[in-house]
This record gives sequence, structure tokens and C-alpha cells, in this order.
Amino acid sequence: MPSGSRDLKPYLANRQKRIDRALDGFLPKEKTRPSTIHKAMRYSLFAGGKRLRPILCLAAAEACGGSVREALPFACAMECIHTYSLVHDDLPSMDNDDFRRGRPTCHKVFGDGIAVLTGDALLTVAFEILSRAKPTTRYDVATLLREISVAAGSRKLIAGQVADLEAEGKRSDRATLRYIHENKTAAILTTSARLGAMSANADEKRLSAITKFGRALGLAFQVIDDILDVTQTTEKLGKSAGKDVAAQKATYPAIIGLNKSRAEAKRLTRNAHSALVIFGEKADPLHELANYLLEREY
Amino acid sequence: MPSGSRDLKPYLANRQKRIDRALDGFLPKEKTRPSTIHKAMRYSLFAGGKRLRPILCLAAAEACGGSVREALPFACAMECIHTYSLVHDDLPSMDNDDFRRGRPTCHKVFGDGIAVLTGDALLTVAFEILSRAKPTTRYDVATLLREISVAAGSRKLIAGQVADLEAEGKRSDRATLRYIHENKTAAILTTSARLGAMSANADEKRLSAITKFGRALGLAFQVIDDILDVTQTTEKLGKSAGKDVAAQKATYPAIIGLNKSRAEAKRLTRNAHSALVIFGEKADPLHELANYLLEREY
Repeated sequence: MPSGSRDLKPYLANRQKRIDRALDGFLPKEKTRPSTIHKAMRYSLFAGGKRLRPILCLAAAEACGGSVREALPFACAMECIHTYSLVHDDLPSMDNDDFRRGRPTCHKVFGDGIAVLTGDALLTVAFEILSRAKPTTRYDVATLLREISVAAGSRKLIAGQVADLEAEGKRSDRATLRYIHENKTAAILTTSARLGAMSANADEKRLSAITKFGRALGLAFQVIDDILDVTQTTEKLGKSAGKDVAAQKATYPAIIGLNKSRAEAKRLTRNAHSALVIFGEKADPLHELANYLLEREY
Repeated sequence: MPSGSRDLKPYLANRQKRIDRALDGFLPKEKTRPSTIHKAMRYSLFAGGKRLRPILCLAAAEACGGSVREALPFACAMECIHTYSLVHDDLPSMDNDDFRRGRPTCHKVFGDGIAVLTGDALLTVAFEILSRAKPTTRYDVATLLREISVAAGSRKLIAGQVADLEAEGKRSDRATLRYIHENKTAAILTTSARLGAMSANADEKRLSAITKFGRALGLAFQVIDDILDVTQTTEKLGKSAGKDVAAQKATYPAIIGLNKSRAEAKRLTRNAHSALVIFGEKADPLHELANYLLEREY
């Protein structure tokens, strides 16, 4: 397991730049009629996000011997889906969040109606981007389409959102919490990594290893997010801190405490590293990403 | 041009039944976890809709020598997209409608948050259904995916919704109104018909004829809808009548008056019929559908 000592920042900055450039090319220009929706889409998409999901997609492609260029459409599609889910999640009828990534949320700037449509448009454009991606011999467009639509659908991403809404104000058990994390967070992270592998035409063994990695990383990521909500300030998070507690959200610290939550995040991160053994050095960026996410905590 | 005298009801009933059965097969069962979302999806999807878009898709397939069976996944995908757009359109932050198809709207029954997610899930499942459809030699999955995602995206369906929202309370001109109708209504009707033709592997000439038909029919349909909002009761419409006037919506009767609107609907319906000449008798159901829609008015 690499030490994670290498400075990941230049790597991340490079990837963010390539992803941003590709997203800019895939999205309609701001002036495209009706400009309101295209402004709003870009406002939410270019809000200084970490680009974790698309970076994961690109790094998985490279671990499987593929190229950044071929993986980029998949990476961009997943970032659009992630951003759509945030825009809708922030709505007053959902989490009712006024800040995201340090800026007012979409509905605070454009109004609730346009924010609903902005989420809709970002979800839809993800599929338009997919229609421009190159399939491989093992993974045809239908397979790639099924991968994304199932991960973003009512039994995964949306299932997690629903369970999260329904858990509010109740005392949740650990199984419910795991269900929420697996669906609300890990499914999209896992699929981002899987699509990268698929863009590289990965064989079954490699795809399965990337899947295990993505799931462990996704779960670790959400545990850490829960911890940060308790331990960090709003300013540092760029979104309202302490919201989970205020909303009596189901979180790891609330159920098993802060120390056990930290141990769980470490355990999951170890699992993520272990899944990568077969890739050797090619998986270095994936190892480093896993460490980077874990270390956000401190 | 057929007289439209044949009773279309048994034909429509048969198609509705086949579409409903296929939709039932494509959608997760109500009990699937989390059941709230699957109940809500089915509540909105099986609410006694006319199934106009999927019926149009199937009839276009048959006009082009294709089969109902091969066209069904496309028909179902378009009905899911149509229903998603209604669920979001009815939200308090959009049109704020309490009734739809004679029943309380999704958010009135399940709450605003779940209604947002229900629309999201219906949009997403449309793409999952598409991933199970059979491509043809002329139209591969990528082409079909682009067709749907562009029609449902920010330059078509969502563009129409945005322009509609922005036109409220303003005095719109006829060009703006046409823009709204073309995007909010005609784009999805046109694509429904086009997908039917594509499922039948239609050549360029036939696809172009179906496209002209779909566009004219779509525009006629929306003019008639505007007229019905003025002339019919809430009970008869199954949704709140007079809402357009109350919300100072851009409508044909408001801009050019009721008589000229009726003449426009007839003119557009004539154009729809003309586009079908090359199909001969095979297009009889399409002719009859066009007449049926026009005659709703009286």
C-alpha cells in the first residue's frame, strides 16, 4: 500500500482541468436559448467541485490500461449526474440547503422551479454525453447505458435519497445507515470507477476488482463526510455544517460515535487498497486518492 | 384523408392495454425497496393517462412496416419521460397543480420531496428501458439514445418548460408561443413517432415524413389543449381548467382568439395528414389519431 506521501495536488489539478474543459465542450453554451437554464446548469456544474467521481473514473481507466481521452465522456456524464443529485437534494422540499461549495445553491440564485429543471437538464445531458462515448468490444452502448441508468435509478441513487428523507427525525439503526450510504453515495462512486474500467475494455477480473475498490471507497467517503459534518466549520466545508445533527439525520457518528466512525473509515479504506493488488503500480493514483479522502478528516 | 368515422375506441383500448402491460413489466414492483418511490412512480404512471405518445410510437412503427412488439420499449420510455415532466410541472414551484387526470397530483399525495424524486426516477427509468430495446441496422443504441436525450433535454422539452415559466404574467407574442409549443409539447410527440419509425428501421424518406407528421400533430395538440383549457370544465378535463388564464399563461386563445385558434388547429391537422401520403393505408391509424385529437375540442 503506497504511503500517500506523494503530493497529489498537481495530479488532481491536472485532472480537474481536463474534466472541466471536457464538460465545457459537452454542455450547451450559456447563451443558448433559453439562457436561464444553461446559465443555471453551468452555475451548478462549475462551482468548484472536487470532481472526485470523474477523477476516479479516469484513474480506474488508467489502472486498467485505458486512456484518459476515452474515459472522459463517462467521467463527465457521472459528474453531471452527481451535480443534478446535489441540485435536487438542496431544494427546500428536500435537504433545504442554502450553501453548496461555498456559494448560494442553485434554487437560491435561480428560484425553485428553475432549480428543479436544472437538475432535470443535468441528468438528461449525462445521457446525451453517453451517446457520444465510444463503446468497446466487451461493453456496448446498451450495457453502458444500463450501468448508468441503474446506478442513478430508483433502486440505487434515488433509493438512497428516499431512505435518507425517510430516516430524518427517526432513530436509525446501522443497517439502515449502511443502506443509505451504499445507495446514496457508494453506487455512483462505484459506477464512476466501473465506467472507467469499461472504457478501457477491462476483463471480468479487473472490473470486479475495480467494483470492490469503488464500493469500499464510496462507503469510506460517506463515513468521512458524516464525521466532517460534526467536526468541521461551515466555512471549511463550503456547505452548512452541523446540518445532519440539526435535521436528526442518520449518520455514523450519531449511531456508533466519532471514534468508532473513524476506525470504520480506516477499515473501509484498507479494503479499498486491498482490492487494487492485481493492478500493481498502475493503480498508484487510485491508492493515493483513497488516502487523500481518508486524510480529509484530520 | 380518411374520414375518421371509424370508431377508434377499441383500437385505443387495445393499445393502452398493451402499453400498460409493458410498463408494468419494465417498472420495479411496488414492494421493491424503498416502496415509497415505487408506489409514487406507479401512482403517476398508472393514473389513467391517454397514452397518446406511446400509441403514436406504435402506430408510426406500423406505418413503417414494423411491429408493435419491437416498438414497445421505445413507447414505454417516452411515456415515462412524459409522466416525469408532468410530475415536475405540477410541483408548487412550477405550475402548482393539485389535480391531474382527475386525481390528486403526486406531490399532493406523497409530498414535494418525494415528487421531485419520483420525476427523477421516471426520467431515469426511461433510459433503463431504452437499454433493453432492440436497435436496428440503421439506428444503433447511441443514435436512439441521442434522439431521446436531445428531445428531453435543455434545448427542447426543458427549454419549453423554462420559456413557459418565464412567459407567465407577461404579454407573449406569437413567436414565443410557437417556441413554447414546439419544445414543450411537439418535441416529445415528434420523437415518440420518430422512435416508432426507427424501431421499424425506416429509411430516410419515411423517417422524414413521420417527423413532419409528428411536429404538425404536436403543434395541433397543444393549440387544442390551450383551447380546451378555456372552453371546458375542470371535471371534464381531469385537471384544473382555466389555470392558463389565471396564471396569465401564454396561450393561443389569449393571443389570437378562440376562432383563429380553432382554424390553426385544423390547418396543422391538415398538414399532419398530408405528411402521411407515402404510407398509404398503413398510416390509417395515424390519420385517425390526428382526427381524434382535433375532434376532442367539440
